[in-house]
Amino acid sequence: MLADAAGAAIRPWFRRPFLVETKEDFSPVTIADREAEAAIRRLLSQYRPNDGVIGEEYGDDRPDAERVWVLDPIDGTRAFVTGRPLFGTLIGLMQGGQPVLGVIDQCIIKDRWIAGPDQPTLFNGQRCHVRHGLALAEARLGTTSPQAFDAADFARFEQVRTAARDTLYGGDCHNYGLVAAGHLDAVIESGLKIHDWAALVPVIQGAGGVMTDWQGQQLGMASVGQVIAAGDAELAAEIAMALR
Amino acid sequence: MLADAAGAAIRPWFRRPFLVETKEDFSPVTIADREAEAAIRRLLSQYRPNDGVIGEEYGDDRPDAERVWVLDPIDGTRAFVTGRPLFGTLIGLMQGGQPVLGVIDQCIIKDRWIAGPDQPTLFNGQRCHVRHGLALAEARLGTTSPQAFDAADFARFEQVRTAARDTLYGGDCHNYGLVAAGHLDAVIESGLKIHDWAALVPVIQGAGGVMTDWQGQQLGMASVGQVIAAGDAELAAEIAMALR
Repeated sequence: MLADAAGAAIRPWFRRPFLVETKEDFSPVTIADREAEAAIRRLLSQYRPNDGVIGEEYGDDRPDAERVWVLDPIDGTRAFVTGRPLFGTLIGLMQGGQPVLGVIDQCIIKDRWIAGPDQPTLFNGQRCHVRHGLALAEARLGTTSPQAFDAADFARFEQVRTAARDTLYGGDCHNYGLVAAGHLDAVIESGLKIHDWAALVPVIQGAGGVMTDWQGQQLGMASVGQVIAAGDAELAAEIAMALR
Repeated sequence: MLADAAGAAIRPWFRRPFLVETKEDFSPVTIADREAEAAIRRLLSQYRPNDGVIGEEYGDDRPDAERVWVLDPIDGTRAFVTGRPLFGTLIGLMQGGQPVLGVIDQCIIKDRWIAGPDQPTLFNGQRCHVRHGLALAEARLGTTSPQAFDAADFARFEQVRTAARDTLYGGDCHNYGLVAAGHLDAVIESGLKIHDWAALVPVIQGAGGVMTDWQGQQLGMASVGQVIAAGDAELAAEIAMALR
């Protein structure tokens, strides 16, 4: 499995002492990132030689193919380098420009979400479901960092945060898994690249949730990286409204 | 062991579906919190019947004793209720008003730090060490939430954050363990109660680090809950200076 290969490449470098921080290109996170993406690409070239690949580390390979794999070997670099086991490997598959398959894998604590194509989301092998029916005032939000927003987006985010019940910081892609599993009600972020969100869409949708941009529109190749993941369409719409 | 008993009480309630949120007193986190503290208190009354106990859930029992156990069964309630396995059980022992023993235990992913009295900090059974010798501009900070500060403290925190290399949000007590293990360089928080910090001091100090209040003074019964944990005294002093 692609995520197993990535995890095997990443685990030896997690929490590894590395004192000479000047050579950033040879830091454990860089090595782990590259080795994990290379491991996934090796398997894809073997089993899906005609598919395209967009990867965070090694760039684009036939990004115009009908089926394109979208890879982020370590989403949550900051968590990885500080020894916090909430970073994740993201593996998405786009077909005709739409995300149809997604994997979020945390290889240290072994939290794994898998979804699609047209299959319900599995969390550690069990079907999982979002939590439905909460208004924004009752909802627990997640977002990784206030500094991930630019100034304009941060002001808009704060309108939602202050209207919500509570906000959980940190977490990166793991937060989206917690939405799919019904523990967290929504995630609001901006500044995401396609390799940050492509894998998340099938995971959220396959658990009964909704993932849109800040205008409430479907995410696609042209999206600017503002995302909402929510337990249902009503909450997503209430968040999009509060973001105006 | 006290932390084992707490973990056994907590684990059944983690990620447990609970839809009727109106009865807050019977929510999984409340039950887990109470059962974990009760489990620790039962062991203490059996093996340390003359010691005092200060607990988050069941209040004070002989807080003026020479030896007082300070308990927070679930530090990081927000993480617990959203299914994020970074909350922790904190067990501290104060002797003559000074913290001499500390345990940080994450019972789901099994990260455990134990320190003192006069013993080096063990992380999952291995001796661990802080990272030394970084200036603030090179340091990675942790803090749980911008909303944990009042307005005045937040303005002071922002002075430090913008001077540091990077900031990791979320994490609660687990961040202090990451400082002890040399992965994170400092944690800066305010609004902490004695049961939030008593266990942390021996863990940080036993790994070679420094823990003070925002004035650079030793933490004690009279502390107002502003804390700095850092890899060395120079970094702690630089942070205290930037907080002015």
